[in-house]
Amino acid sequence: MRCFWEPAQWLLRCFMQLYNKAVIIQYDGTNYSGWQWQTHSPSIQEELQKALKVVYKRDVNAVGSGRTDSGVHSIGQTANFITDTYIPDEAVVLGLNSILPMDISITKAWDVPLEFHAQKSAKSKTYLYRMYPSRVRSAFMHNRAWWVKGRLDLSGAAEILSAFEGTHDFTACCAAESLRENCVRTIYFTKFYKEGDVWCLEVNGSGFLHNMVRIITGTVVKFCRDGHGPERVRQMLETKNRKLGGPTAPAEGLYLKEVFY
Amino acid sequence: MRCFWEPAQWLLRCFMQLYNKAVIIQYDGTNYSGWQWQTHSPSIQEELQKALKVVYKRDVNAVGSGRTDSGVHSIGQTANFITDTYIPDEAVVLGLNSILPMDISITKAWDVPLEFHAQKSAKSKTYLYRMYPSRVRSAFMHNRAWWVKGRLDLSGAAEILSAFEGTHDFTACCAAESLRENCVRTIYFTKFYKEGDVWCLEVNGSGFLHNMVRIITGTVVKFCRDGHGPERVRQMLETKNRKLGGPTAPAEGLYLKEVFY
Repeated sequence: MRCFWEPAQWLLRCFMQLYNKAVIIQYDGTNYSGWQWQTHSPSIQEELQKALKVVYKRDVNAVGSGRTDSGVHSIGQTANFITDTYIPDEAVVLGLNSILPMDISITKAWDVPLEFHAQKSAKSKTYLYRMYPSRVRSAFMHNRAWWVKGRLDLSGAAEILSAFEGTHDFTACCAAESLRENCVRTIYFTKFYKEGDVWCLEVNGSGFLHNMVRIITGTVVKFCRDGHGPERVRQMLETKNRKLGGPTAPAEGLYLKEVFY
Repeated sequence: MRCFWEPAQWLLRCFMQLYNKAVIIQYDGTNYSGWQWQTHSPSIQEELQKALKVVYKRDVNAVGSGRTDSGVHSIGQTANFITDTYIPDEAVVLGLNSILPMDISITKAWDVPLEFHAQKSAKSKTYLYRMYPSRVRSAFMHNRAWWVKGRLDLSGAAEILSAFEGTHDFTACCAAESLRENCVRTIYFTKFYKEGDVWCLEVNGSGFLHNMVRIITGTVVKFCRDGHGPERVRQMLETKNRKLGGPTAPAEGLYLKEVFY
């Protein structure tokens, strides 16, 4: 593929003058309806394409690595766009950031082969979920982390979470509208750690069902509260029973952390 | 004083039924005109007093440890209020938080003697200033820290900052409107440390002139950039020359961290 594509790409660049650029796009999703363009409210894709139109002086279609829901944040969402004008990486970063709202930021831009597709080329993604168990809410965590009311012993959380690792049918961990599709997914690794007052849960996988990370998070919190162990996770996955799990954790704690290619 | 006040206070409690309650109030100051009640835009004091009116079912005047400017945040602002109804600490915290907007939170409430006054009884205050030197801005730090554009070597910052410690005439570190007053203040200690990508500057002192911490921060950053050392701080303080210092750092990076009584 490499032998074939490299000269083909070079030829395309010479004659058709097409360039493919990837960007890392960071956003606080609070004020947006998610990644995907919506008619009724502003989306990240819309803001990015509006900024691209100013920088490239024509309509440019941006492809994201995947949707993020309303209120979900991104540290490492990756997008790409094909243009017929070449603009250096640094100028793309500075140009887009000068136009984008302050809660969206391009942190990196780089050239990618023409066949690179932010969604289809992705090998895995890491999602981060932030929560803080506390008696009182924090004025600074609002919209940025899930306030888990009251004190909570999360010492068993890492073990419960790791029971989700591997290839499973995740029917018990998805929103109802995903149930028509094949629900087998692979989780490569999970992490559970503390940063100050905030507990961080990370899940890396090849693909995710709708609300899967939020349901996994809600389940870990519920099982810690109820004193269940990892065997309950295995039971939940085997029986495909959504009711055995916890609630869907709110969107505000979820971050698309990194996309691997 | 203690021998005299304790029975006096007890008597007041018995006959006049007056109670003095202190609270720690945390806030994201982005959407407020500061602590002080203003006619033209919402203030923290106004929001607190509106919530107190609901909880205590009458007008209650709240005294803060001091003003914070528009856009300045608080982790440990302390306020007190005198009432003729006794409500337990936990009920005050939960009651006020159920009414206050999500960017304001009461983290603690406790009983204090009737003579306690959040401003006059304060012995010292610690301000925290958060900044992040970076080539690109962060979507999450917006309104929460100062984006110092470009790369910056802050290795000498702690030494420059410590030159502000002690009792000095801080004429060179205050906004023009403070110049009519006596500008001698004491800084008890300073700290400069890193938390992730964010540099934190802390200043503890008995009292502060208007914009003093923001001017000290702007000066530390300027001196690091220009390669000046702590002797330049001493020169600035001695000559009382505001022009030798750096710019006034923006309000969004400033936090009232703790008030000591």
